[in-house]
Amino acid sequence: MSELVSVDQWQNNRVLRVRKLLGEQTPVQAILLSDLHDIRWISGFSGSSGWLLITEKEMWLFTDGRYTEQASSQINSTGVMAEVVECRTQTSMLEAVAQRVKSMSGVWFQSAHTTFDMYQTLKIALAVDLLPAPISLGSIRRLKDPGELALIEKACRIADQALHEVLPMLLSEPSEIDVRDQLEFLMRQLGADGPSYDTIVATGPINSARPHHSPTSTSIQEGHTLIIDVGALVEGYHSDMTRSFVIGDMNQEQLHAYQAVLEAQAAGVALIGPGVATRDVDALCRKVLTEAGLGEMFNHGTGHGVGLLIHEDPYLNSSSTAILQAGDVVTVEPGVYRGGFGGLRIEDLVVVTESCSRTLNTSPKEPTCPPSPQTI
Amino acid sequence: MSELVSVDQWQNNRVLRVRKLLGEQTPVQAILLSDLHDIRWISGFSGSSGWLLITEKEMWLFTDGRYTEQASSQINSTGVMAEVVECRTQTSMLEAVAQRVKSMSGVWFQSAHTTFDMYQTLKIALAVDLLPAPISLGSIRRLKDPGELALIEKACRIADQALHEVLPMLLSEPSEIDVRDQLEFLMRQLGADGPSYDTIVATGPINSARPHHSPTSTSIQEGHTLIIDVGALVEGYHSDMTRSFVIGDMNQEQLHAYQAVLEAQAAGVALIGPGVATRDVDALCRKVLTEAGLGEMFNHGTGHGVGLLIHEDPYLNSSSTAILQAGDVVTVEPGVYRGGFGGLRIEDLVVVTESCSRTLNTSPKEPTCPPSPQTI
Repeated sequence: MSELVSVDQWQNNRVLRVRKLLGEQTPVQAILLSDLHDIRWISGFSGSSGWLLITEKEMWLFTDGRYTEQASSQINSTGVMAEVVECRTQTSMLEAVAQRVKSMSGVWFQSAHTTFDMYQTLKIALAVDLLPAPISLGSIRRLKDPGELALIEKACRIADQALHEVLPMLLSEPSEIDVRDQLEFLMRQLGADGPSYDTIVATGPINSARPHHSPTSTSIQEGHTLIIDVGALVEGYHSDMTRSFVIGDMNQEQLHAYQAVLEAQAAGVALIGPGVATRDVDALCRKVLTEAGLGEMFNHGTGHGVGLLIHEDPYLNSSSTAILQAGDVVTVEPGVYRGGFGGLRIEDLVVVTESCSRTLNTSPKEPTCPPSPQTI
Repeated sequence: MSELVSVDQWQNNRVLRVRKLLGEQTPVQAILLSDLHDIRWISGFSGSSGWLLITEKEMWLFTDGRYTEQASSQINSTGVMAEVVECRTQTSMLEAVAQRVKSMSGVWFQSAHTTFDMYQTLKIALAVDLLPAPISLGSIRRLKDPGELALIEKACRIADQALHEVLPMLLSEPSEIDVRDQLEFLMRQLGADGPSYDTIVATGPINSARPHHSPTSTSIQEGHTLIIDVGALVEGYHSDMTRSFVIGDMNQEQLHAYQAVLEAQAAGVALIGPGVATRDVDALCRKVLTEAGLGEMFNHGTGHGVGLLIHEDPYLNSSSTAILQAGDVVTVEPGVYRGGFGGLRIEDLVVVTESCSRTLNTSPKEPTCPPSPQTI
């Protein structure tokens, strides 16, 4: 019972954090949310269509008939006070919003999640001063509360366990697709709502040279590099983890690259903590790989935030200006890729704590499958 | 070999259809595509990040290091002439586009797929007259070519077969989640890249009253209504199909509702053909259900286009102004829902032909599982 009260408190804190922004901005009396992840975060509603209008005292969720029953149930279960308004068409939805904002002087809209066309439509339909919200809810929901962390940790445990169970299969020359299917089936058996994203299984000198390869019928063969990038989805929250292997023994080039990626990843994770600039984590991983002569082969950013989105603030790359804070959940995932060589990447999900950080994935980092005495 | 030549021809036709628009608009020399489905349709590139800039003579795909190798390979395999430009950050991507449009008087952007914030960023970075494209590519790629139809048909066959194979399982009181997992596993075994959307398995008086219910641990019990809405994804193309059942015998209310939904769906499909207004299909389905006293329980539109998106033009609802044309692929999916009763929906994917239409799904429409002599 006490846990239920806490869940309500977290949920109400989210609403309060948004309403606090409104209280500070007198010319604006409401914020119209169109980003479904933000709407879910505030209200619990997980449908694929809807708008949420929030004022200092009231809240309305506008959705269509496919979702009204679900919306009422989900909102009730979070304890948030919001009225569900059923709208059959977009026109009636615009009218329903317009009716509630007509006496206001200003309304914020989500300029990072509203298309140019929808902005024009809203401007005409609402007949109110429509202003880009000065802060994205992404920056508010960046820091995870204990309820969110519990779901992300569960998603990590499921992916770790699924990878563990799939390892023996790698020795029987399965296709990339076979491994992907088995991983996703296992994650669901283990309690996931589904995969967190399109699971990546990439092997060989061509496919594993693509950081975001889609699995094919290519079979996993001895001596080839293999990247498995897998996460689970639990009640809307994602996990994200990558392990890389060679089936059988590594050659010298593979061993050198694996060792460098492992070092870069460990260095990146060790640097994570409150007050650290995300670009510094990226720079450190890049420095380790550059010193190993592999800097050119690391052709993507070092990481990103994870939550209701698989990619969200803060980003860990050379152009990011974000500073890590307690409650941030980010990936650290350096990798090296080159056509002909293939690719290797190692990735963990890490939560920033008050004093330092904690790695949420527990899968071992064995360079070969099965583990061999050659292990680093 | 002849098939490969045809694929190239279809692909080149797509490019020509876009370039034709440019040729007609002299103040505009290029279109900047940001919608990844449009980019895939034109170039074959299926990554999760990129822009495509098209002029009358040239084409550039801007993407980041995760995708450059894949982009080159996919573009080569479609035979489209486009140069891949690797950009490490968004800033460098904006610069790369700006460099190529700097001498132009006008560039179209996709106002229905570009956020308000991104429009502001582009306007400053490109320093060129940035205009909303007058026609969406959605309206161009609405009509499917033979290559696209073949993929959609394959996706339909896979979902039909997966549903067929899962039916015996329904008699053993599985949970909604069990059925969903099995359907998605089977579809992949049958050659799908994955589910076309979050598979819906909804049973009982509460869950099946939600048209877009997410599967839970609720078990499928005798006498309850059950909705299964399932589709497969094949090379980016979707299928979409729904069947509804009662395990064991239907009661009178269920039988009446099932018969009405079946009649409404058949009437809708029979009306589909070139020159028909989509709102008329919606009105006809609604009329059949209203005459059966169930009009209020049909709380969503009748259908939508399906292709690279699961929901795309044309929409079949009361406010749609679209006229069906040969090559349109649309769903016809009336349903009835009420808390306490549950829900029933029947849906097929239908292609509009030169003279009439053709239904792509072949799953039988048996009201009970197993089929009983009570069958309508």
